Amino acid sequence: MSLTVVGSIAFDSVRTPFGERDRMLGGSAVHFSLAASFFTAVRVVGPVGDDFGDDEFALLGERGVETEDIERVAGGKTFFWRAHYEHDLNVAHTDDTQLNVFGEFDPKLSDASRKADVLFLGNIQPELQRDVRARCDARLVALDSMNLWIETTRDALIRAIGEIDCLMLNDAELRMLTEEPNLARAARAAMDMGPAVVVAKRGEYGAALFTGDGFFAIPGYLLEDVRDPTGAGDSFAGGFLGYLDAEDAERPTPEALRRAMAYGTVLASFNVEDFGTERVARLTREEVDERYEALRRLTHFDLPAA
Amino acid sequence: MSLTVVGSIAFDSVRTPFGERDRMLGGSAVHFSLAASFFTAVRVVGPVGDDFGDDEFALLGERGVETEDIERVAGGKTFFWRAHYEHDLNVAHTDDTQLNVFGEFDPKLSDASRKADVLFLGNIQPELQRDVRARCDARLVALDSMNLWIETTRDALIRAIGEIDCLMLNDAELRMLTEEPNLARAARAAMDMGPAVVVAKRGEYGAALFTGDGFFAIPGYLLEDVRDPTGAGDSFAGGFLGYLDAEDAERPTPEALRRAMAYGTVLASFNVEDFGTERVARLTREEVDERYEALRRLTHFDLPAA
Repeated sequence: MSLTVVGSIAFDSVRTPFGERDRMLGGSAVHFSLAASFFTAVRVVGPVGDDFGDDEFALLGERGVETEDIERVAGGKTFFWRAHYEHDLNVAHTDDTQLNVFGEFDPKLSDASRKADVLFLGNIQPELQRDVRARCDARLVALDSMNLWIETTRDALIRAIGEIDCLMLNDAELRMLTEEPNLARAARAAMDMGPAVVVAKRGEYGAALFTGDGFFAIPGYLLEDVRDPTGAGDSFAGGFLGYLDAEDAERPTPEALRRAMAYGTVLASFNVEDFGTERVARLTREEVDERYEALRRLTHFDLPAA
Repeated sequence: MSLTVVGSIAFDSVRTPFGERDRMLGGSAVHFSLAASFFTAVRVVGPVGDDFGDDEFALLGERGVETEDIERVAGGKTFFWRAHYEHDLNVAHTDDTQLNVFGEFDPKLSDASRKADVLFLGNIQPELQRDVRARCDARLVALDSMNLWIETTRDALIRAIGEIDCLMLNDAELRMLTEEPNLARAARAAMDMGPAVVVAKRGEYGAALFTGDGFFAIPGYLLEDVRDPTGAGDSFAGGFLGYLDAEDAERPTPEALRRAMAYGTVLASFNVEDFGTERVARLTREEVDERYEALRRLTHFDLPAA
């Protein structure tokens, strides 16, 4: 079992009502790979600049993430994002985006990356996603995207979606992509584009899974202390695909997909407990499994007495 | 077992992208009592005008709802509401509100109404809710409210909340009431006002239950065909409290509260399948139990193999 993720590696400066951090490690591929590292061997593919140093490599390395496919662009600077959140953490404001080396990203894949069993195409330009997908022979390929690509490169994105197994978008993106405000209908419309599985991420409300057999829904794990929501969706995807890779089946069963939804929810919930990668970096597998069981308890109900 | 609901009875004119209806039966007490009627004997208390006729009484009577405490105000007109929904059904616009007899509502309670085991104080002026509550000796009292009362009569509302067992608000109202954007913290703050149970209704995302023991969350039942969301929250409350009344226990167990959350979700999901009361009016208990089981299947997941 092995999992390759292609996506952004970043420095994030984030301020929330509960504190702030300057230039902490972030980016979708980072949050994804840390979450997935609890389940499987992860290789991360993405560009960084000269400012990306030993501390950042060490943070990934301590979770066992394979970093040899991180491309260090000489003379370049790492993708930088600055944002602040309101008292209601659902409201985020981007204050600065510097794409830097990420703006010229041309994914280089080692043999090991190309031969991974599972591939996650993080939120990058759809033609790059297609190109990476064509060079890999994963048994399971999942794809994330964003409103920018839906608006500016819709046709390419639809072609990319037609070539993968699992589409993972947030619910607003899924509605925008399909121009269908009803989520269940939006998911069916997205499945008509190709993927057998569609996951709708719903922020604090959890996530929904759509397959040919039907659907599954899971609420978010309710927390009293949320410090920084950045990377929650990527952590969800990492937990979800990391678990599916660990299952190591040719095709995931409906039961495995549901467990993967629960593990995704668990990893996302830990991610938001502290800034950036701080909580997941010190997380243990035992804590993951404890919260999985807690999530089971807080979502299950029994049949009434006959 | 018996349940009294005090609240609005209305004529609603509603337009959605899927059709429209003129002056159909509506109001929170109506949606609530129809939903609760699948579980227990319901008595509805509320005012109507001369325009409220045999057809409306018949619709309630066919579901076994006791209507003798509906007060017919001679020379008055029934509460009227006109609204339309956008293509995204989460966006509603009120076009007209005529309180009519509801504006002078002074609840009259028969002995039978006062002696009900369970009381639901629908969304009316908080001092009226307190007055009704003081005259009843129900073992379980639940209360709904709205942003208007939070803004204009906050102190009275907090006193009313201090005298009941179960607070049922939508999540935005709960946040507004407690001035706490985190839902779990908002629920704890509301419990500090008195009620042992707080239910946060989350629209299409489902609902969350907070008690001294912890919390429980359930997603909404995902539907591809939603025609009119009007009354979904009241149907949820009716299914929830109707089931709890049918349990007939002195204090609901954690397991019973969870089943009640699921029945509330089921009734809300049927409510939105057609305009106004149309779907619930033709619903059967068999359909209710089938969807309960379907909801169980689509929310449950198992433990991973060791």
